[in-house]
Amino acid sequence: MPYYIGDVIKDYNKLVIRTPEAFGKTGINVRIKTRVEDIDPQKGLVRLSDDSTIPYDILVMATGADAVRLDIPGADLDGVFVLRNLTDALRIKSYLNEKNCRKALLIGGGFIAMEMCEALRNLGIETTVMIRGCRPVTRWDAEFTDIIIEELGKNGVSFVPETKFLAIEKGPSSPLVLKTDKGDLDADVILMGVGTRSDTALTKAAGLEMGESGAIKVDSRQQTSVPGIYAVGDCCEVFHRVAQRWVHLPLGDIANKQGRVAGQNIGGHSTEFPGIVGAQSFKVFNLEVGATGLTEKEATQYGFQPISATIHGLPVGRPMAQGEKLMVKLIADKTTGKLLGGQCIGAKGAIQRIVGLSVALWSGLAIEEVGYLDLPYAPPFGGAWDAIHVAAQEIMKKM
Amino acid sequence: MPYYIGDVIKDYNKLVIRTPEAFGKTGINVRIKTRVEDIDPQKGLVRLSDDSTIPYDILVMATGADAVRLDIPGADLDGVFVLRNLTDALRIKSYLNEKNCRKALLIGGGFIAMEMCEALRNLGIETTVMIRGCRPVTRWDAEFTDIIIEELGKNGVSFVPETKFLAIEKGPSSPLVLKTDKGDLDADVILMGVGTRSDTALTKAAGLEMGESGAIKVDSRQQTSVPGIYAVGDCCEVFHRVAQRWVHLPLGDIANKQGRVAGQNIGGHSTEFPGIVGAQSFKVFNLEVGATGLTEKEATQYGFQPISATIHGLPVGRPMAQGEKLMVKLIADKTTGKLLGGQCIGAKGAIQRIVGLSVALWSGLAIEEVGYLDLPYAPPFGGAWDAIHVAAQEIMKKM
Repeated sequence: MPYYIGDVIKDYNKLVIRTPEAFGKTGINVRIKTRVEDIDPQKGLVRLSDDSTIPYDILVMATGADAVRLDIPGADLDGVFVLRNLTDALRIKSYLNEKNCRKALLIGGGFIAMEMCEALRNLGIETTVMIRGCRPVTRWDAEFTDIIIEELGKNGVSFVPETKFLAIEKGPSSPLVLKTDKGDLDADVILMGVGTRSDTALTKAAGLEMGESGAIKVDSRQQTSVPGIYAVGDCCEVFHRVAQRWVHLPLGDIANKQGRVAGQNIGGHSTEFPGIVGAQSFKVFNLEVGATGLTEKEATQYGFQPISATIHGLPVGRPMAQGEKLMVKLIADKTTGKLLGGQCIGAKGAIQRIVGLSVALWSGLAIEEVGYLDLPYAPPFGGAWDAIHVAAQEIMKKM
Repeated sequence: MPYYIGDVIKDYNKLVIRTPEAFGKTGINVRIKTRVEDIDPQKGLVRLSDDSTIPYDILVMATGADAVRLDIPGADLDGVFVLRNLTDALRIKSYLNEKNCRKALLIGGGFIAMEMCEALRNLGIETTVMIRGCRPVTRWDAEFTDIIIEELGKNGVSFVPETKFLAIEKGPSSPLVLKTDKGDLDADVILMGVGTRSDTALTKAAGLEMGESGAIKVDSRQQTSVPGIYAVGDCCEVFHRVAQRWVHLPLGDIANKQGRVAGQNIGGHSTEFPGIVGAQSFKVFNLEVGATGLTEKEATQYGFQPISATIHGLPVGRPMAQGEKLMVKLIADKTTGKLLGGQCIGAKGAIQRIVGLSVALWSGLAIEEVGYLDLPYAPPFGGAWDAIHVAAQEIMKKM
């Protein structure tokens, strides 16, 4: 019988096994609050923190990734949270209510941080985003992050780039003070969204080979380098169809698919995970923000010859337009003529385009084909020439 | 120099050449209110209604299609309109205002008629849709039209199926009376949206070969069977990539693309139109309605072995759901495992899915791949397993 090592209600730095209630009726044996200390793949045993062992025929590593806490004094103070799992969310929610928080500092500008801005502002909390770099959500290019920063401003979020974080202390007039090279900032709550790190202790114990990305190396059946051990989710790599290489992209939908593929293979139904194209999206206030495929920087890094075009289009037919904006950037490879990636931003219709571009990338379409794709045209949803047609044709002119 | 025979401001049953203003600065010679009576492809001449002739090297047929008027007495009475071009729209708008119309009858239930319902109700006009058949928008299957009929009702539109239209007369107490087998109905205005018919007089004169569909036969460069004559838009056929045959699908976005392809070829840049997949959409009140590819009926007719699955999904992640609904139907071919078509309906997110499915059809994806497509997941835009993943997996179970 396979055991699953999961992280649904994982405490920081601990591994617990999925909630038993959900599996109770299925006959699957689930142990919670049970830390796996060691894995012996030769004997097919996991050793628990109480020194007991459990034998396995097949083991699935689903240990996810841990949120990184800044290595500064006071990073563990009460009221300082990371943004990772359900436990974090529940704790933050309780804290905001109990302490009647009015002032939040967000350290980090990833898309989870962007989503938190909206959640905090919806609660009427004064919110400041501070980052070490120049721009938030670096997955998107500067012309997109400009719009995002503007949207933060419109919605009362202060944005402070290029900040060095020095320490967090208890404050004289507020619960917390964040000390930075730009001065001291008072806060009721501090949220850190500065990336994730895989827990590698167990993978070392099991002797699992790691990929170049630093995550567990798997094949398209989710098998690791060690027979009988599978890996799925944020702890392992995934094949990027556009980059044509294994990458680490810890996203929930990918993890779900990998779990299914591993389950199918374990159950005897041979299934290969066909890979990903790097599709991502988030919503921040009134903006849909989406991206798929490679950025120009990634494309260059992977040996492509990227050319790009950015257009300012409409999410509706021109006669219906009432000031809506939709910016689309496409990237194609000069050598092969293939679409390499796309980014899109706007109050509506951005994700619709990223869906289409993601399937185009999945299928390896040429940019010329993207310029003629048959899309479900109607004025409430776009023009007879859709914004992605127009962007593709702009690129064609440069080819 | 090529002349374009277009229909932008075409009067009913007349051909006029595109507005000169738009072309004035480009040096293109445009004649309006000029009816082409005959074409002599041997001599390369078009003969006009004033008996003068214009020579051509290349001729583009862009004659579109005419709206059909029911062949019943009174179909030409003042206040009875067809729904086709800009002139119709302007006339209807003026008439509604001038006569202060309070009661409209719509004959026909195509998607243009559905869009008119919304426009009329937005003006506060009492609206009744009457059709000869059982269901509106027959491009969509019954489970979808049920929802559309319900939406019409919710928005105060009466729907009357299976009606025989007998005559239109001037009424004693209202401007018009529509006589049907279900009784007489008063109306201030009557709109007919009962299909289109190509104007074939000129095509016969030019000796153009017609396709099985009854529209002008063209190749992928938009060339007709007669050298030097191209055809584009609603008057000609288009290649359906899923059906793998030439069909007649008179839609505005297809016409635009064909025009571009013809222009490229005429200009010496050899370009092939890659075809269509049958993507369509419309909005009716609070519903997005989309379809792409083939229906089960069409699939059977074209020799496929269709199997389908219909699922009731969500346009957002489950934790964010607030009663939204999204119905998705997918159709696949049992023999090849390929996706054949899809339909989608809901208050939001339906078109987003039809865009993705359209690109999947374009690329000839297998239904198994559709079940694992990498889409830009975020809870405001769908679940980690998107509704189209779920529908694809439902079909997989039946294969």
